[in-house]
Amino acid sequence: RYFHFCKLPGRVMGIRLLRFASVVIIVLLLVAGALTALLPNIKDDKMLNLRREPKPQSQSSLDSFTLIMQTYNRTDLLLKLLNHYQAIPQLHKVIVVWNNIGEKIPEEMWNSLGPHPVPVVFKVQTVNRMRNRLQNFPELETKAVLMMDDDTLVSAHDLAFAFSVWQQFPEHIVGFVPRKHISTPSGVYSYGSFELQNPGFGNGDQYSMVLIGAAFFHSGYLEDFQRQPEAVYALIDETQNCDDIAMNFLVAKHTGKPSGVFVKPVDIRNLEKDTNSGYSGMWHRAEHLLQRSYCVNKLVNIYDGMPLKYSNIMISQFGFPNYANHKNKM
Amino acid sequence: RYFHFCKLPGRVMGIRLLRFASVVIIVLLLVAGALTALLPNIKDDKMLNLRREPKPQSQSSLDSFTLIMQTYNRTDLLLKLLNHYQAIPQLHKVIVVWNNIGEKIPEEMWNSLGPHPVPVVFKVQTVNRMRNRLQNFPELETKAVLMMDDDTLVSAHDLAFAFSVWQQFPEHIVGFVPRKHISTPSGVYSYGSFELQNPGFGNGDQYSMVLIGAAFFHSGYLEDFQRQPEAVYALIDETQNCDDIAMNFLVAKHTGKPSGVFVKPVDIRNLEKDTNSGYSGMWHRAEHLLQRSYCVNKLVNIYDGMPLKYSNIMISQFGFPNYANHKNKM
Repeated sequence: RYFHFCKLPGRVMGIRLLRFASVVIIVLLLVAGALTALLPNIKDDKMLNLRREPKPQSQSSLDSFTLIMQTYNRTDLLLKLLNHYQAIPQLHKVIVVWNNIGEKIPEEMWNSLGPHPVPVVFKVQTVNRMRNRLQNFPELETKAVLMMDDDTLVSAHDLAFAFSVWQQFPEHIVGFVPRKHISTPSGVYSYGSFELQNPGFGNGDQYSMVLIGAAFFHSGYLEDFQRQPEAVYALIDETQNCDDIAMNFLVAKHTGKPSGVFVKPVDIRNLEKDTNSGYSGMWHRAEHLLQRSYCVNKLVNIYDGMPLKYSNIMISQFGFPNYANHKNKM
Repeated sequence: RYFHFCKLPGRVMGIRLLRFASVVIIVLLLVAGALTALLPNIKDDKMLNLRREPKPQSQSSLDSFTLIMQTYNRTDLLLKLLNHYQAIPQLHKVIVVWNNIGEKIPEEMWNSLGPHPVPVVFKVQTVNRMRNRLQNFPELETKAVLMMDDDTLVSAHDLAFAFSVWQQFPEHIVGFVPRKHISTPSGVYSYGSFELQNPGFGNGDQYSMVLIGAAFFHSGYLEDFQRQPEAVYALIDETQNCDDIAMNFLVAKHTGKPSGVFVKPVDIRNLEKDTNSGYSGMWHRAEHLLQRSYCVNKLVNIYDGMPLKYSNIMISQFGFPNYANHKNKM
């Protein structure tokens, strides 16, 4: 072959070499151009480092959250809250769990008042169950869930901060309402808030649960919730209560740590009194708190142990709303 | 062999079997007894779970800390503070870094006023250097260091809580004094506190440093500090300042996260005015803050980049001192 090549006249050889060399040069230039385009912009990287944010990804992964709001007999409050929550930064989508069985969802009205900042999905339920909100909804695309009761308004500032805290503690329930259990000499547990005796680990109080009616948590826990013992579902259905206590048991078991991280809210409001429906929420039932103590003990039986752990960490936002809110006499 | 065994008379066989069986049974019983002794006490485990504390180890590992306090020309304050700090729960030992060159340590007086709750070691220095307190002292046995300035009093309650927070964030500087850097359009950094412009990441302020003059940090960082570029030591010696800024750079580089976690103190006091020495501390020098901005920029050169990261997490103790300190209008 070499021998054959060398038999060609000099001029033909020259032209072929020239063409070949040109093609090679052009290809190299194109490759170099492509590589230059792929090089990271150094200035952007430095800015990213300063902000300590994850590399920009699609809005639907770690940088945004899905609001899940279950509603029963308080559509006026729901709509008022939707106007507020639909505009929260970093919200990806709203899932409304429609527990008003047999009643039409307000989809037509919702659409007629569009456009809206994010998609809102109404999930029609067939039975009015408290645990309907703990389904693993296919519409859920984000890692983070914000779960809110349909009578609770939390300010955008509080939500933005709590979301940033969740991003630093993604395996915990990060929210605004702390509760605790205490154990008694008889071994029977009781459920309550700060009015209950401190658990006695040093100064101050402790909490062992963060309620999911105003909290961020990882969507993976909704998946996990589908795999719990039947007795858990039976308990929640029997009481129409305690789904949040069950979630705290689940999370505590999973992490081996306190289930929740409490973020002290600056502006959280209960809008119960504002409803025209006259319906004032489950927690007004006489047996509500006793039920919750009952649930704690039942769950300890079901899970064969008490997985809840105490914490006394209370998180607030540095320099907000008061830019000197960290100061003390010094 | 089998054949041989079977040749023995029945009675001999029986006795041998009996002995053999007895030995086996006794061995089994001993093994069972040993196993039972090794079984964990279930009740204790439950209590440990409730407390979320590490298994009890020697006081000198994770459950206690060493106070390192450097002192110069304020022996009266030092002794007042030692009376307070020597009694802090979970304190293992005190290391006093004696920067009073040529002056006798008050060891005789200290001993004559014994007994003391913990050992106190006076480390005589040969040169009055700010960075003397950042040596890797052989007397240091605990994983945790509490570093305090010799004019700062923090209450036992604050220290107990901050120590528990450090145990949850052992790679961070957990302390009571937050500071920040800001970057300017010229690229030059400035150092300051909340009076400086917010770095502009959402609402409120941010901090990027926690000063080591009132903080817990991992003793491993003292080891790391011995391996820094010479220019760092030269900078600290030149300014007699900035050792704490250098430590924050070190920690931030090591973790890739904000170096500090700020715990809002309930009771922190500066006793400067109470000294008879007339000496009022380095931070009163006119050039003190300008020096610190200078140090930030020098350290960015030395480390070839800005490793400090911002945080706005402010931690307080749930239910202390006010048992309802988490409450908001709801």
